[in-house]
Amino acid sequence: MDIKQEIEKRADFFDKELEKFLKNGAPETLYDAARHLPMAGGKRLRPVLSMLSCEAVKGDVIKVMPLAIGIELIHNFTLVHDDIMDESKLRRNLPAVHIKYGMPTAIMAGDLLFTKAFESMHNIPGDISIFKNVEYGLIDCVRLISEGQQLDIEFENRKIVSEDEYIEMILKKTAVLFMYSAEAGAILGDGSREQINALNEYGKSLGLGFQIHDDYLDMSSDEKTLGKDIGNDIRNGKKTLIAVHSLNNSKGEDKKILEKIFGNRNATDAEVKQVYKLFNKTKSIEYAKVTAIEQCNKAKKALDVLADTEAKNVLLALADYSIQRKK
Amino acid sequence: MDIKQEIEKRADFFDKELEKFLKNGAPETLYDAARHLPMAGGKRLRPVLSMLSCEAVKGDVIKVMPLAIGIELIHNFTLVHDDIMDESKLRRNLPAVHIKYGMPTAIMAGDLLFTKAFESMHNIPGDISIFKNVEYGLIDCVRLISEGQQLDIEFENRKIVSEDEYIEMILKKTAVLFMYSAEAGAILGDGSREQINALNEYGKSLGLGFQIHDDYLDMSSDEKTLGKDIGNDIRNGKKTLIAVHSLNNSKGEDKKILEKIFGNRNATDAEVKQVYKLFNKTKSIEYAKVTAIEQCNKAKKALDVLADTEAKNVLLALADYSIQRKK
Repeated sequence: MDIKQEIEKRADFFDKELEKFLKNGAPETLYDAARHLPMAGGKRLRPVLSMLSCEAVKGDVIKVMPLAIGIELIHNFTLVHDDIMDESKLRRNLPAVHIKYGMPTAIMAGDLLFTKAFESMHNIPGDISIFKNVEYGLIDCVRLISEGQQLDIEFENRKIVSEDEYIEMILKKTAVLFMYSAEAGAILGDGSREQINALNEYGKSLGLGFQIHDDYLDMSSDEKTLGKDIGNDIRNGKKTLIAVHSLNNSKGEDKKILEKIFGNRNATDAEVKQVYKLFNKTKSIEYAKVTAIEQCNKAKKALDVLADTEAKNVLLALADYSIQRKK
Repeated sequence: MDIKQEIEKRADFFDKELEKFLKNGAPETLYDAARHLPMAGGKRLRPVLSMLSCEAVKGDVIKVMPLAIGIELIHNFTLVHDDIMDESKLRRNLPAVHIKYGMPTAIMAGDLLFTKAFESMHNIPGDISIFKNVEYGLIDCVRLISEGQQLDIEFENRKIVSEDEYIEMILKKTAVLFMYSAEAGAILGDGSREQINALNEYGKSLGLGFQIHDDYLDMSSDEKTLGKDIGNDIRNGKKTLIAVHSLNNSKGEDKKILEKIFGNRNATDAEVKQVYKLFNKTKSIEYAKVTAIEQCNKAKKALDVLADTEAKNVLLALADYSIQRKK
C-alpha cells in the first residue's frame, strides 16, 4: 500500500469540502488572512485521521466532514497564533499570516478560524446529543492545547524538565487533537464503545509518536551541518525529548557544560556543537527514536480489536509513516 | 429607581457565578492571565442585560447564568486581543494582559477565555435543541465582532467613510453582542417569539446608542483641555460618528483642512484644535448626541409589547443610562 497516496486521496476529498465551507467574505482582507493557511494545503493528517476512524468502524464518511473541517480549522487557528508568539516567518513555504497581513489582522484571522471551526461543527448531522458531546470534546481540546502551548513556553526558561512533564506537554500540545480526531471520527461513524476507546488510544500514541519524531527530525535532519534550527533550539533551551533526556542523564562535567550552554542565547557555534555531542554521548537522539517507535507500536496494537478493513490497514501504515517521514 | 444599584445587584450575583466557573488551573500563569480581566470587574452590562431580558419574560434567571458567563467571557476575550492589537497599556485601571503577562501568554489567555465561554454555554440546562440554537448565535457573534474590528482598523486608513458604513461597523463590533445578550436571555427565559424579537430590537438600539455615546464621551470628556485621547483619535483618523459626520458635511476650505489634518499622525496640538473646531462647526458632536438619543428612544419603544414588570422598568432606565453615563 502506498500510504502517501491513501492519505492524499482522502485529503483531496477533504480539500473540496473545506473549499466549499471556508468561502470568501467581507472584509476581504480578514477572510484572505483567515484562508491563507488552510488553503495552502498541508498534510491534513488530523481530518484524514477522523475520516479513517469513521471508515474503520464502517461509518459513512460524509457524516464526518463537518467534524474534519472543524478539527483542521482549530489546528490552523493554533498555527496562526503560534507563529505570532514564536515570531516565525514562514509556514508551509509561505509567509506566516502575521508577516503577510500584519499582527492585528493575524490575531483576528486566528479568532475567525476558531469560530468558523465551531460553525462547521454545527453542521454535524444526526442526533443532537451526539453533536453536543462531540462539540464539547473539541472545546476541551482547545483548552488543553492552550495549556500545552503555555507549558512549552515556560519549559524554555526552566533548567530541568522531567520526562513525565515533557510527555504531559506534548500530550496537550499535540496528541490530544490526534486523539480527539480518531475518537470523534469513530463516534460519528457509530462505532461501539470498544472501537471508540481503541481509536482514542491509537490517536494518543500516534500523536505522541508524531511529536517525538518531529523533535527527532529537527535534531537529525542536517546532522552534518548542524543547521540553523538545531542551533536555535539549543540556544532557546527548547525542551525536546532529546534535550530532556540528555539533561537528566548526563553527569559531572558533562552536566555542567550542558546546563551552561543549553538555553544560552549567545552560545557560539562551537558550543552548540559541544551540546550536540553530549546529546549523542547520553544516547538521547537514539532514545527519542526508540521512544517514537514504541509509541507507534502501541498505536498499532490498539487497533487489534478492529475488524480487518482497508481503513484499518491504512491506519496501521499511518502509524509507521508518522515515525518514518523525513519532514 | 436607582439604575446603577439595579445593575450592581445583578452584577454581584453574576460575579459569584463567574467566580465559581472561572477557577484557577494549571499552568498557573496562563489561568492568572485569563482571569486578570474578567476578575477585575467592569460594568457587566452584557450579562446583566441577558439576565434582565430573562426576567422581563418572567423566566428563571438561574437558567440564564451559563449564557451570561459565556457572553462576558467572549467580551473579555475580545478585549484581551484588542488591547494587543491597539497596543493599549491600561484596561479597567489595571495593566492590560499583554503588558502584565507578555504578548504570547496574552494571545493564549484570550484563546482560553474564548474556549471557556463555550464550555460555559454547555452548562445551559433544558432542551438541547434550544442550547444548540443559542450556542450557534454566540458563534456567529464572534464572527461578526471579528469583521467589525477589522472594519474599524481599515476605516482608520480610509479618507471617507459613509454613515451607513460606520453603522455597519459598530453594529458588528459592539451592538451584535448586546442584541444577542437580550435575545438569548429571552429565549432561555421561554419568551414568546414576539417578546424575543422585541428584546432583540431593544439590544440592537441599546448597543448602537451605547457605542455612539462612547464616541461622544471620548470627544467631549475633557473639551477644555483637548486631552490625549481626543488628540490620539484625531491623529489616528479614528472614524467615530462625529468624524464621519464632519468629513461628510464640511465643504470647501474646511473640508480640505479636515482631510489634511485628520489622520495625520504628526498633527500639532494647534492642528488638532482646528479639527475639533471644525467638528463643532459642522455640529457633528451635537449630531452624535442626538443620534444616540434617537437610538435610546428606539430601544425603549421596542419594549412596548412587554408586560409591565420590574425588569422592564430597569431595561427602560438602562437605555437612558447608556446615553447619560459620564464614563
